[in-house]
Amino acid sequence: MMKLKMSLIALGLSLLTSFVGAQTADHRTDSSLVRNVFSEVLAHGEAHENLRILCKEIGHRLSGSPSADRAIIWGQSVMDRYGVDTSYVMPVDVPAWTRGDIAEATATSHEEGTMPLHITALGGSVCTPQQSWIEGPLLVVRHLDALDTLDAKNHIVLFNRPMDPLLINTGAAYGGAYDQRGSGASAAAKAGAIGVLVRSLTHALDTLPHTGSLRYKEDVSRIPAAAISTVDASALALASQSSKHPIQIRMRMNCRDLGIREQGNVVGEWRGSEWPQEIITLGGHLDSWDIGEGAHDDGSGVVHTLEALRALKSINYKPQRTLRFVLFINEENGNRGGKMYAKVASEEHLKGLRHVAAMESDAGGFVPRGVRMDAPDSGVDLVRSWSETLEPYNLHYFGRGGAGVDIGPLKKLEPRPLLMGLVPDGQRYFDLHHSSQDIWENVHKRELELGAATCASMLVLLDRNLPTK
Amino acid sequence: MMKLKMSLIALGLSLLTSFVGAQTADHRTDSSLVRNVFSEVLAHGEAHENLRILCKEIGHRLSGSPSADRAIIWGQSVMDRYGVDTSYVMPVDVPAWTRGDIAEATATSHEEGTMPLHITALGGSVCTPQQSWIEGPLLVVRHLDALDTLDAKNHIVLFNRPMDPLLINTGAAYGGAYDQRGSGASAAAKAGAIGVLVRSLTHALDTLPHTGSLRYKEDVSRIPAAAISTVDASALALASQSSKHPIQIRMRMNCRDLGIREQGNVVGEWRGSEWPQEIITLGGHLDSWDIGEGAHDDGSGVVHTLEALRALKSINYKPQRTLRFVLFINEENGNRGGKMYAKVASEEHLKGLRHVAAMESDAGGFVPRGVRMDAPDSGVDLVRSWSETLEPYNLHYFGRGGAGVDIGPLKKLEPRPLLMGLVPDGQRYFDLHHSSQDIWENVHKRELELGAATCASMLVLLDRNLPTK
Repeated sequence: MMKLKMSLIALGLSLLTSFVGAQTADHRTDSSLVRNVFSEVLAHGEAHENLRILCKEIGHRLSGSPSADRAIIWGQSVMDRYGVDTSYVMPVDVPAWTRGDIAEATATSHEEGTMPLHITALGGSVCTPQQSWIEGPLLVVRHLDALDTLDAKNHIVLFNRPMDPLLINTGAAYGGAYDQRGSGASAAAKAGAIGVLVRSLTHALDTLPHTGSLRYKEDVSRIPAAAISTVDASALALASQSSKHPIQIRMRMNCRDLGIREQGNVVGEWRGSEWPQEIITLGGHLDSWDIGEGAHDDGSGVVHTLEALRALKSINYKPQRTLRFVLFINEENGNRGGKMYAKVASEEHLKGLRHVAAMESDAGGFVPRGVRMDAPDSGVDLVRSWSETLEPYNLHYFGRGGAGVDIGPLKKLEPRPLLMGLVPDGQRYFDLHHSSQDIWENVHKRELELGAATCASMLVLLDRNLPTK
Repeated sequence: MMKLKMSLIALGLSLLTSFVGAQTADHRTDSSLVRNVFSEVLAHGEAHENLRILCKEIGHRLSGSPSADRAIIWGQSVMDRYGVDTSYVMPVDVPAWTRGDIAEATATSHEEGTMPLHITALGGSVCTPQQSWIEGPLLVVRHLDALDTLDAKNHIVLFNRPMDPLLINTGAAYGGAYDQRGSGASAAAKAGAIGVLVRSLTHALDTLPHTGSLRYKEDVSRIPAAAISTVDASALALASQSSKHPIQIRMRMNCRDLGIREQGNVVGEWRGSEWPQEIITLGGHLDSWDIGEGAHDDGSGVVHTLEALRALKSINYKPQRTLRFVLFINEENGNRGGKMYAKVASEEHLKGLRHVAAMESDAGGFVPRGVRMDAPDSGVDLVRSWSETLEPYNLHYFGRGGAGVDIGPLKKLEPRPLLMGLVPDGQRYFDLHHSSQDIWENVHKRELELGAATCASMLVLLDRNLPTK
């Protein structure tokens, strides 16, 4: 039985092979170009050094900050140096917010006395009233809807649902816990709470708070919200169960809103020789959170984008379509850069320019596993037909899913472009994500380079294989 | 044309699907068992804590050392605690060698004066005569056969060929540079050299020397040989090109041979319910180099093996065949444990016991990508038929290649067993391999656990799906 199954499977495979064989010459050129891209990046790559400059000389760069201004100037200058035909900054109005220099909290129990907690403000949080201490009893919940039936009046609520360790895909585990950070403050305020702590979104058990954005609802009062380390969150939850008296939390923060500033997306354009009116975009986001250095998130995507440009120039690639290299602004707390890019793209469509494909790198600088696609079936099938070309580079994953926050808004264009997101290995990503440890030293040179080469290879394969209209 | 190709490819795929469909019930049970294994390991895993004990409480454990004795006792006690039916130590005579406490070298140039070098003895090296200084002019070569035409008399030879950065597979890059370390000393001695330095086998540019074994040829005098850091090796090569006068090298080492000692392979056996005479082995090696802690090499393989046992017991798995969990001794400098295991296996064959499959984990505790197989076609096809079951765990690689040093000698059995090696991602492995940085802190908990779960899953799939004879 096993043997019969095997030979019929072999028949199926040989069918597959023969139709792949029909396009041998093109495949051979594709393979040889991809090999050249990887060799160029691994032998002469500048991604690691560019990331050092971005992380160490510019540093973190939250939207609206002066360092984000410097990052924009730097990004454009690198694109110019690498030889785009034209570069510009596409203006985007972005929110500015500052963390301030105070984020403190303590927990006091009748049995154990007072212990300090490791917290940091969630991005966009209001400060505590008059930047002074607030104090209230602790209420620990695991789900937002638990607040429907609990009295949270004058409490400080801790949202303590961990990321699910059983999910292999850490991004899915993040998605499953994300509502606490994004919507916890308004849910708690609606129930009468005066402040919020959110368990940091990471599998790691340590004392690092991980920040990230929150969204206040319009019709609910805005209360201060902070991320708290997983160790502290677990300790508080345990203490609140075992203590006969309520745990008292005190916290203060002096973060604040600074209004709106104009910054922008950096765009570099390399005109196509055959179909210059067809545009393929590759990008990452230039803004980062304001702790750590935004090395993986998304310094990696920025230098992947720049390195793809450099490598394709170095191997003398001649694009048939127009390649656009984009460093988006404001991914972390508003997505105004991505939305503006899609708005401009829809205006460009009216002028005869067509966005046929876009790729984003915003999942870290770890070893690449493949890509995730948000595309019509024909696009997904096309990309999967390259699996043999990409197999020698350990690129095996060609799943469906969200391609990325910045290129996501391009979905609304008609006809729908092929959207693709780089999928690096995700096991270590959330250990560092949005924390003080997302620094250059925690990015591995070869892994970063393999990601850059994957992005560049995808540009080549898209450019050469997309159907002509 | 594209569309036609696509639908014919789809036809091929649907053929594949239908024959997979024919074994749906078994596949569903396989999938559910694999899911249970991964959940058990990710929720309750002890691999990371076991690795801490092995690395921090026992420490490095070169064959023949007292710490290797302690590791053997510990390994057997964990197997007993996890519930094997029987455990024993299979005696193996192993070489004992000690690094001593002196490994020093300097380079002196006419222009720059004297600089210290970062070296460590290669495993098995003789000491410098009378454990005192040797001194000679530097001769830099990149290939062993360069010495056929060069005068190396009284020189100290530096083998300076880097691992090829263009190879995606870092193991292949290691293999391509390995001859310098394994055979460099005898090649240099034959050409008249008095000492040898070998560029450390790593892509990283740093000041860490990476040790490893050398093999002296019988008919050539034994000269002292040390690994030198990549930064020092590059600096020496550059200096030797630019300096008008020869660079003088001084070195001394007091490593020495300690003869033969009896230690052994730890074997734990879990008898099968249906075909107890058929044996499936899973193992890693307990010995390690004597710098660092042997955390990835091969503490990871050790705790993968122990965790596979623990997890299968915890989910109440009932093996049909006999599962053997083996912690091999002396992989690093002799492979006497692996050879003895194969010798015993061939004797067992005469008694009606049949080794039908074996798996080894000896490529680090990084995130698993799949397995490498050394097996007849039927075995390779069988394993590849599980790709759908394993896809949700990001296991995509099912290539052919050496399955591992310890199980390799089983190849000679008839009929040939299905041999399989775990393939973790290899991009970071050689940064740490055989160096002082191969320590517990550099192993990632979830990545380690995913490797353990992969090993346990493979045991289940082999046990349930190997053809019955």
